Amino acid sequence: MRLHCFGESGNAYKVALMLVFSDFEWEPVWVDFFSGATRSSEFRALNAMGEVPVLEDGAQVLTQSGVILCHLARKAGRFGGKDLQEEGDVLRWLFWDAHKLSANAGSARFLANFLPPEKRPEPVIAFQQARLRDALKLLDAHLHERDWVVGAGPTIADFACCGYLFYPEPFGFQRVDWPGIDRWLDHISALPGWKHPYDLMPGSPADRAQPIS
Amino acid sequence: MRLHCFGESGNAYKVALMLVFSDFEWEPVWVDFFSGATRSSEFRALNAMGEVPVLEDGAQVLTQSGVILCHLARKAGRFGGKDLQEEGDVLRWLFWDAHKLSANAGSARFLANFLPPEKRPEPVIAFQQARLRDALKLLDAHLHERDWVVGAGPTIADFACCGYLFYPEPFGFQRVDWPGIDRWLDHISALPGWKHPYDLMPGSPADRAQPIS
Repeated sequence: MRLHCFGESGNAYKVALMLVFSDFEWEPVWVDFFSGATRSSEFRALNAMGEVPVLEDGAQVLTQSGVILCHLARKAGRFGGKDLQEEGDVLRWLFWDAHKLSANAGSARFLANFLPPEKRPEPVIAFQQARLRDALKLLDAHLHERDWVVGAGPTIADFACCGYLFYPEPFGFQRVDWPGIDRWLDHISALPGWKHPYDLMPGSPADRAQPIS
Repeated sequence: MRLHCFGESGNAYKVALMLVFSDFEWEPVWVDFFSGATRSSEFRALNAMGEVPVLEDGAQVLTQSGVILCHLARKAGRFGGKDLQEEGDVLRWLFWDAHKLSANAGSARFLANFLPPEKRPEPVIAFQQARLRDALKLLDAHLHERDWVVGAGPTIADFACCGYLFYPEPFGFQRVDWPGIDRWLDHISALPGWKHPYDLMPGSPADRAQPIS
């Protein structure tokens, strides 16, 4: 399988984690997002939505991290929830994450770190960080007496919700503020094969001398 | 079935449309969102995520509009896509909508219409409207030579993507600017049983004398 991705993408990281934890054979295909590659006609032909991740699984081309995670859980027979009830719950957290957690974390992190300082829209960053805190509060409370987001073991709901939470750039999240989340991230990074996003996928801020303009 | 909802919620409207188009027996349960009902302990006991829609289907309590739509499509045997390929495509558009379309439309509409003028964060509204235009552009192009979002007939992907697009309040969307979307909305509102959100669910701005403070 080929995963079109770049190290800075938390949405791609969700899928990369699932590929690793499931022992799938895969290779990353680096997408030069910061030079506009996702806006190119070649990339749009692969994914009209103009986003990573894109997974090529044989002739199948899959997009949207939530869809890819469900596909891989079915294919692996793992990490999708142990019964119909858990499967429904996993999907519920995938949708919540897409709307409330990763959407705000991803955008706040991009605006606050990957734009040149004079182009950073501070009121927008503050707004997204406040929405992010609401989401983190909910997740932290949920994890207060649980080890995993759904059921008794890791699922794709965990891999989705943690997508942006291992990154070092400041964007309004610090593990020390959220003890339930902190403990849960330790569980995830203790899973066999876990790697930091910048070690699992090609591309990182260290490769770029200048912030994009 | 009982749908916890209020007229102003586009996410609840998606589910209400599916209930109507599938001829399910259902009743709305009005949630007094604008007085803080979704933050109450009673409501949090029903849905810890503190959001509408919530669907009670017998003993099952379902939340997240995307999950509820998938549940109802399975139950109805309709509107879920005609084969595995279409089912995957439907899920792809549900995730895209949650992240890119309804998230921006819903938030921009709330901030620009349901907050008192002095509390409206104009830079945030402008940012969300720009992201919304990106999403509308993509959807309009997709609908340029298609009648429906996925396949040859209506699916829950259509009911999700149209969730906020029938509302009259100004939030950065006008049908006249998007001919593909305009034509598609006509297809949806021509389906038997279609109603405007304020006619399908209890509660509308007309019920409130003052904007919330």
